[in-house]
Amino acid sequence: MTGTIQRPSPFRLHKRSTNCAARRGEVQTLHGTIQTPIFMPVGTQATVKAVTPENLVELGTQIILANTYHLFIRPGHELIKSLGGLHRFMNWQRPILTDSGGFQIFSLRDLATITEQGAAFKSHLDGSKLFLSPEDAVEVQEALGSDIMMCLDTCIPYPATRDETIEATALTSRWADRSRQAQQDTGQLLFGIVQGGMYEDLRAQSVEELVNIGFDGYAIGGLSVGEPRDMMMDMTEHTAALLPQEYPIYLMGVGTPADLVEAVYRGVDMFDCVMPTRNARNGMLFTSTGRLVIKNTKFRNDPRQVDASCDCYTCRNYSRAYLRHLYTSREILAYHLNTIHNLHYYLGLMEQIRRAIEEDCYEVFRKEFYAKQERATDNSA
Amino acid sequence: MTGTIQRPSPFRLHKRSTNCAARRGEVQTLHGTIQTPIFMPVGTQATVKAVTPENLVELGTQIILANTYHLFIRPGHELIKSLGGLHRFMNWQRPILTDSGGFQIFSLRDLATITEQGAAFKSHLDGSKLFLSPEDAVEVQEALGSDIMMCLDTCIPYPATRDETIEATALTSRWADRSRQAQQDTGQLLFGIVQGGMYEDLRAQSVEELVNIGFDGYAIGGLSVGEPRDMMMDMTEHTAALLPQEYPIYLMGVGTPADLVEAVYRGVDMFDCVMPTRNARNGMLFTSTGRLVIKNTKFRNDPRQVDASCDCYTCRNYSRAYLRHLYTSREILAYHLNTIHNLHYYLGLMEQIRRAIEEDCYEVFRKEFYAKQERATDNSA
Repeated sequence: MTGTIQRPSPFRLHKRSTNCAARRGEVQTLHGTIQTPIFMPVGTQATVKAVTPENLVELGTQIILANTYHLFIRPGHELIKSLGGLHRFMNWQRPILTDSGGFQIFSLRDLATITEQGAAFKSHLDGSKLFLSPEDAVEVQEALGSDIMMCLDTCIPYPATRDETIEATALTSRWADRSRQAQQDTGQLLFGIVQGGMYEDLRAQSVEELVNIGFDGYAIGGLSVGEPRDMMMDMTEHTAALLPQEYPIYLMGVGTPADLVEAVYRGVDMFDCVMPTRNARNGMLFTSTGRLVIKNTKFRNDPRQVDASCDCYTCRNYSRAYLRHLYTSREILAYHLNTIHNLHYYLGLMEQIRRAIEEDCYEVFRKEFYAKQERATDNSA
Repeated sequence: MTGTIQRPSPFRLHKRSTNCAARRGEVQTLHGTIQTPIFMPVGTQATVKAVTPENLVELGTQIILANTYHLFIRPGHELIKSLGGLHRFMNWQRPILTDSGGFQIFSLRDLATITEQGAAFKSHLDGSKLFLSPEDAVEVQEALGSDIMMCLDTCIPYPATRDETIEATALTSRWADRSRQAQQDTGQLLFGIVQGGMYEDLRAQSVEELVNIGFDGYAIGGLSVGEPRDMMMDMTEHTAALLPQEYPIYLMGVGTPADLVEAVYRGVDMFDCVMPTRNARNGMLFTSTGRLVIKNTKFRNDPRQVDASCDCYTCRNYSRAYLRHLYTSREILAYHLNTIHNLHYYLGLMEQIRRAIEEDCYEVFRKEFYAKQERATDNSA
């Protein structure tokens, strides 16, 4: 059974801020309801790097993101389907969002050719020729059994001319329509991805075309591709305001803690980013007072925990000196402990954000967030 | 306060097998009593690679081994002491045995010069010149605060001439005497290390010299250095039989599961080896029916757990197909899950060994151990 599936929005609004666009809500999925605003740790290859599913649950992770492009190439969606789907494969029973592969094809665009039909590309693993159409991307995600599927889109580089942007945005809309048509009635949600580059009118046009097709949620794509931060925030604000407020709004691939605070302020509900996990593996730890580079010599004999106000497993049990030792010794435990700390920071930040919105004091929270970071001029203090 | 410390043996015998030298006992240490025969996971650089202390406790680990040589070089024993000792540094509250550095100096002997005074060597990290005397090795281990310290020894390569072996063994005895003299009254145990190469009479002489000094336990060193397995077992049997039976007997750096079964049969109480952890990181998994190389293509879509008779965290939650995917994708979770499985296998084997000795059926157990492995000609079966 194929055809456009119209169903009620999975989003339910709990609370809207009085003085800004920040909002508190929830999204219903096949594997449970997630509370927004929310951050989704990234599990590219069917694992959030360096932690177990039990660690993620303990950290309060509600939903993770996995990667259609990577799983399509290895181990293959048919294999995962034959083993009971992605949840069972990776031992994760909470919701999963799968991105469509559009951003990976963009990242690896020297290996890709975009046509009306879809994206022809070479595997980054072995150079073999592969093809992914919008219909394929839906089929792959249905095989994986993710809770939230994303339409295949064409991500636009920055800078891009207006003509390039018009063309790519129009193609994204046509692909979105084909994606919605291809969707089976599995109960999985399908989100459209707004493009339009850095042109406000093209963002508006993209929103209009996607809303006319009708999706279960809307993502703001094509940001964090090298544009100035102010421009990213302006585009986020502009696009979020145009999107239908009765659906979830997802800002893809963003960002720093401050980016999350600002984008929530502008009305965004959902986020994903590799930053907490990737930076952890590079020895960069997020704290309530700023960033801390654990390999720094000044931490050599520092008995203190990473963040005095943090109660994560890492901070409860290990000193900066030990974490520095593990990192400089390239021990696997370094990646594990750093990842736990950074995810705890991101997920804790989102929890504080949700509470602030519930109490309708998001603007106060936002000011205090910056004040804390400014008060700290030195993380070893 | 310095001087030879004579105290009662920390070993208590529970049960001696009727028909072989296998014995069931315990060793009392500052951080608790360990049940023997026992396997000690190796935590070279103050972490058992790829697992947390909590994982180790859950696996039933009673004691771990850490490495004097590595910790002396990085981060330094004074630093660890200033942070409250090794237990606190690495968040491990059960016993720790530290080896003396003798084997590492042997392994890196192109970088080392042995004199009467001690070992001069270059750091394998930055080439800086370092020196470790027997007294230094004790001082370092006292600073680390390990429960069981090992004397600095001179490990003898295989093959070695009788003259070389005589000289190195005599030096080891003189170093052992200096080690015992240097020891402070900290309550830490100090074990002597028997050398003597592959010469039975020199092994006997080494035992005699060490026993005359008097230690809290005795290790069989200088094996698993390239000699045939039969020779290793013969030397183990010969040496274990000569050692005073009221003290713990520790076979250093050995070995495969079958090696453990055989050495227990010959009277050994304690073991350490990197094999379960290192092989895990190389994708080799131990099972009750033999070894399994997880990257093998035949496991690509195998939904079964690694070992049908295993109830470890990895086997309870993940398929061979998923473990293969993680391994071929070089995901950190692969090292974690494989390590948990292999340590569970080793620690479970020792638990079975202890039970078999308690029930005085160790010979039956030993036969069944081999029978299981022979019945399985193919691990995918």
